[in-house]
Amino acid sequence: MTWPPLREELRGIEPYGAPQLDVPVALNVNENPYPPSAAVVADIAAAVTDAAATLNRYPDREFTELRKGLAEYLNADGGRGIGPDQVWAANGSNEVMLHLLQAFGGPGRTAVSFAPTYSMYPEYARDAMTAWVAGRRHEDFAFDLEHAHEVIDEHRPSVVLLPSPNNPTGTALPHDVIGTLCTMLSGHGGEDGLVVIDEAYAEFRREGTPSALELLGDHRNLVVTRTMSKAFALAGARLGYLAAAPEICDALRVVRLPYHLSAVTQATASAALRHADELLANVAELRAERDRTVAWLRERGFEVADSDANFCLFGRFDDRHAVWEGLLHRGVLIRETGPDGWLRVSIGTAEEMAAFRAALLEVAS
Amino acid sequence: MTWPPLREELRGIEPYGAPQLDVPVALNVNENPYPPSAAVVADIAAAVTDAAATLNRYPDREFTELRKGLAEYLNADGGRGIGPDQVWAANGSNEVMLHLLQAFGGPGRTAVSFAPTYSMYPEYARDAMTAWVAGRRHEDFAFDLEHAHEVIDEHRPSVVLLPSPNNPTGTALPHDVIGTLCTMLSGHGGEDGLVVIDEAYAEFRREGTPSALELLGDHRNLVVTRTMSKAFALAGARLGYLAAAPEICDALRVVRLPYHLSAVTQATASAALRHADELLANVAELRAERDRTVAWLRERGFEVADSDANFCLFGRFDDRHAVWEGLLHRGVLIRETGPDGWLRVSIGTAEEMAAFRAALLEVAS
Repeated sequence: MTWPPLREELRGIEPYGAPQLDVPVALNVNENPYPPSAAVVADIAAAVTDAAATLNRYPDREFTELRKGLAEYLNADGGRGIGPDQVWAANGSNEVMLHLLQAFGGPGRTAVSFAPTYSMYPEYARDAMTAWVAGRRHEDFAFDLEHAHEVIDEHRPSVVLLPSPNNPTGTALPHDVIGTLCTMLSGHGGEDGLVVIDEAYAEFRREGTPSALELLGDHRNLVVTRTMSKAFALAGARLGYLAAAPEICDALRVVRLPYHLSAVTQATASAALRHADELLANVAELRAERDRTVAWLRERGFEVADSDANFCLFGRFDDRHAVWEGLLHRGVLIRETGPDGWLRVSIGTAEEMAAFRAALLEVAS
Repeated sequence: MTWPPLREELRGIEPYGAPQLDVPVALNVNENPYPPSAAVVADIAAAVTDAAATLNRYPDREFTELRKGLAEYLNADGGRGIGPDQVWAANGSNEVMLHLLQAFGGPGRTAVSFAPTYSMYPEYARDAMTAWVAGRRHEDFAFDLEHAHEVIDEHRPSVVLLPSPNNPTGTALPHDVIGTLCTMLSGHGGEDGLVVIDEAYAEFRREGTPSALELLGDHRNLVVTRTMSKAFALAGARLGYLAAAPEICDALRVVRLPYHLSAVTQATASAALRHADELLANVAELRAERDRTVAWLRERGFEVADSDANFCLFGRFDDRHAVWEGLLHRGVLIRETGPDGWLRVSIGTAEEMAAFRAALLEVAS
């Protein structure tokens, strides 16, 4: 007899998740290396103290204040007049994605992405009982619009899910690709498919790389997701969000579990948003460190994908696992992910990157 | 053209949720009327301050400390040697239920309950694309084991979902019913079905009413869910949990979104658990107030269902909506739910219940 009685397609699957190892230099899950400052911690503590006084009551189901704060922030980073009714939030952008797929995917519907891409996407699709199809990218990880057209024509997806910058390659999508995809998905098969641009790492984009937020007014089937985990250095607080047409946000209320955002989460995120300037100052430093890392790797003869994110994908190695292990042995944990032969390193502090470089030189020699 | 392109079965559905109205006396969502004390608030604030210092890092995916605290607490309220590996937690017991149905329900599988019961259950089933079948209870809301047997034989559910005490009736399940159901579901159709006893209100049970936790050792297919929203007065913090066989808890890791419990949520819940004695002292007061309310209603000639919860269902009214509205007009918000003719009132403070009684006498006369 089968025990436990898991549904068949889940049997034998290992739970997702990078190893949570205790190492001196953790550059494996694209965390922001800068902890919140004392001022941010104090403001979060004050906000939570305030919220704690009425924790016996259910939280604001519509997270009104937080939505306002997020809309305001987005309008300062590429958004054009985004209103609070165009914002949705959940416990991490993974829950945002789940909501999108529960509402707009589901049995008999298909979600599409283009590999190599974020390894959690097929899991979200599976959790929402949505068929999953992965096309491919060009050899240099650039988006292959012609191939995408074929995949979309063949599978008629309800949702196309694309990170920009892409994880684990760091590759951003140009505006014309996003616009063309939105038009392609518009009205196909009698109804619109959604184009979801996952901008988890958007704040790290290089000068001149645009945000998909700028296109929101042009395409009602465009959804742009963001997170406070990376630029806001708030991975521990679990706050993902999106901007989209008001009808999209409203529809997500049908599938969200009531009161999904706790009063404590709402207070924490709103407090951090009030310190956006300070938290984003560290982003500038990380972007510079990223560019230095890319340049250094290339100087040493490594291949490195162009990166608009706080990580970079580099290679190629005949035995990437040995390199990964060699680094770990030297106290530097990076991520064995992406196409074979490549490794991904998150951008840490200057000191952490120095440790990474020193370890890599030892391992690679 | 259909816009937004929601999947068909969600179209036209109103999002779930009691009206969030600003009224002097809110007795509509079974909240605990006692806010956390200054000591509890201070301890939560200190724990969150501590957690905030490393919010740039992802939280402990396995919520190790919280699991230990929850296991310890359960062993003090009916559990018999429950270990941390027999505990699972999520953002509210609604997410716990979703995890259970995502793992053990899903397309082609059926979940069963017996009405009248909690109105969110069919929504969880829908979110997990699980077929939903509702049997019925006896006229006095007691569990009808003979009828249940027929329903289970006919539908061969993967999950039977039963609150004890039941919401909105307040009716607890006797041990022999739970034991019989577990045996009934055991090995039917080649694998076990789960019996999920939702003990969200268990701490309010009357003297002599047992907890299903006592039976965990006897049935590997028994799952008991709890929440910190009610007895712990922590509805705003969103922390639901369950106790079950270790294999059940382990299997839920496959469907949970990674890092589903934020560091802030883990810190808040662990801090509240350290104050269990103080928070539960208010439960004794609420149980007494509940018994007084039931007695008073019966003296006035109302029908009242026996209640082991922090609410009671009373009636019957030819026009319950008029009564609900009359109470609201007098500043007392209760819930129009359950079978026609009945209304549900949450147990508040002595002052709130006095306001309820005064308003009801006016409206009913």
